[in-house]
Amino acid sequence: MQVGNKNYRTVWMEGSTVFFIEQNLLPFEFRIREAHTYRDSCQAIRQMTVRGAGAIGALAGFAMAQAFLESEGKDQHYPDDARIEIESTRPTARNLFYATERVYEAGIRSVAEAVTEAQRVANQDASDSQMIGKYGNELISDGCTIETHCNAGWLAFVDYGTALSPVYVAHDCGKKIFVYADETRPRSQGARLTAWELNNAGIPHAIIPDNAGAHLMSLGKIDMIITGADRIAANGDTANKIGTLEKAIAAKEYGVPFYIAAPTSTFDLACKAGKDIIIEERPEEEVLFQEGPDSSGKMHRILVCSPGSPAINPSFDVTPAKFITGIITEKGIIRASGETINNLFNP
Amino acid sequence: MQVGNKNYRTVWMEGSTVFFIEQNLLPFEFRIREAHTYRDSCQAIRQMTVRGAGAIGALAGFAMAQAFLESEGKDQHYPDDARIEIESTRPTARNLFYATERVYEAGIRSVAEAVTEAQRVANQDASDSQMIGKYGNELISDGCTIETHCNAGWLAFVDYGTALSPVYVAHDCGKKIFVYADETRPRSQGARLTAWELNNAGIPHAIIPDNAGAHLMSLGKIDMIITGADRIAANGDTANKIGTLEKAIAAKEYGVPFYIAAPTSTFDLACKAGKDIIIEERPEEEVLFQEGPDSSGKMHRILVCSPGSPAINPSFDVTPAKFITGIITEKGIIRASGETINNLFNP
Repeated sequence: MQVGNKNYRTVWMEGSTVFFIEQNLLPFEFRIREAHTYRDSCQAIRQMTVRGAGAIGALAGFAMAQAFLESEGKDQHYPDDARIEIESTRPTARNLFYATERVYEAGIRSVAEAVTEAQRVANQDASDSQMIGKYGNELISDGCTIETHCNAGWLAFVDYGTALSPVYVAHDCGKKIFVYADETRPRSQGARLTAWELNNAGIPHAIIPDNAGAHLMSLGKIDMIITGADRIAANGDTANKIGTLEKAIAAKEYGVPFYIAAPTSTFDLACKAGKDIIIEERPEEEVLFQEGPDSSGKMHRILVCSPGSPAINPSFDVTPAKFITGIITEKGIIRASGETINNLFNP
Repeated sequence: MQVGNKNYRTVWMEGSTVFFIEQNLLPFEFRIREAHTYRDSCQAIRQMTVRGAGAIGALAGFAMAQAFLESEGKDQHYPDDARIEIESTRPTARNLFYATERVYEAGIRSVAEAVTEAQRVANQDASDSQMIGKYGNELISDGCTIETHCNAGWLAFVDYGTALSPVYVAHDCGKKIFVYADETRPRSQGARLTAWELNNAGIPHAIIPDNAGAHLMSLGKIDMIITGADRIAANGDTANKIGTLEKAIAAKEYGVPFYIAAPTSTFDLACKAGKDIIIEERPEEEVLFQEGPDSSGKMHRILVCSPGSPAINPSFDVTPAKFITGIITEKGIIRASGETINNLFNP
């Protein structure tokens, strides 16, 4: 994606150096950082300097390639030790394991192949996202208003993104669209990252409080909803950022089409239904405190709740397949049903 | 309600002085302020130092009484001019006009009657709230978990509140209850005021992001929902804080009883249905910025969204009667239907 007058991916590798957008500075600062060793790359994943399924996967692949590059003349266990370290950075991120394994297998053959394979992993993430955009764009008519939740834009992947990829393609086709970006409390990825992406791309949009979705739907102001997914079960039930479920229920009530956009790597066929997905509880501090700059640009962390009250912070919810109009994948748009999903993987 | 070891109302009058809780300092500081003239009282309404339908009404009544007390020896138009000024402080607050008119009519007879009538207005607000608590408590069983949205507690009224009044009564009866307080972005009245009230009363509770409601309902963790109301139409459609509608739709989906608690003064029979209610759009700054103290207690106003992105901030939504299990009033619990409401007012 273009930022300023230059094209960027969220993460890329040149020689033995990995470059990445320092995402925890966004939306207030856009800065590129370098990781010179696989340990630097691990650190970036661990500290969530790079976040988002696709971006983490690509960075993990590059880290594995860096480890092979560093291994020459070192102990023969160096790549194995590195792999363990890379895989332990974010143990719940599925893409991380997939990418690390692919690059490791290639690296067993030769160091050069590890580097090539890591580039392939990143390129595939970008091209899958691009295909999702192409298919999703077919659903978007001129003048369409689209609501999205959380951030499933290019910042979460290597490029293009999932939920926002159709939005970018529609915009590039010259369609007049308007995006309602749910704030997405408590971490506000919608208000911070999605809004930043849309502003950067010049796409008309507005941030809305998470509370406003059903209201706008009831007034007929939302033509469709597209969100990303963290995990899709074999029956189409979909885990995504907390609040997705509320939008999906309201969308059903008001007849607003509700789409999930995700690459096929997000499907977890070992997981039969949504009830098998374990929901991560995150620290209450994410609800109780907020960070941001004051009018002079100085950053502060402030308490936004009543002192002494506890908070509960479930980070994902599960949207039953019955609320999902369709799933936009790199292989096409499918219905959220066990049969269709099975056909996709076993054609 | 008890704060520390003293009982408080949100607003009260002794002699010609009106006392009130300075609500815009909450939840970080509890302070009582005095209004020595009706103009001081107007200022408190205008600056939202006192907020909430019932509290505003009572303060307006006291302000009108203050004007009569001040009028002795002054121009004969003094009370009339004062009435115009009081009514212009928050022109959309219905209780304000009702209270001002009652006290004005009494003041025409005598200054003493104005003061008595102002006390009556405040006392009636408190006793209506108390009755709502008594009726609402009948719906709450031991071990019940209750979700509430925004703040319809005693801080919004003279005492007890509406949505929280049944919670207080249930707690006083020794029932073990747990309250999920929706944060209620963008102004966070749930996280700030409701949480403060519950913490102050020693009632077990947790703040939840607005996004978490449907998720908790889907897990069976919410036994009932009670919210307040800003206006109830003749057919039972109810305007309340933005986000109420999403909770009501999700509650219907998961079979969770959804109650509105409001005094009969909240009904607007001139308003036939929800679509006749005009929804106030508030400034985008409420979404874009947040205020609170840092770890040293110093207050900051910070940007919590991506710089340069606009926000949309509808402050209320309308919940159709079909989603409302019942309306808890000071006269009993009624169904949210045109027929039942008509019977209530024309018995």
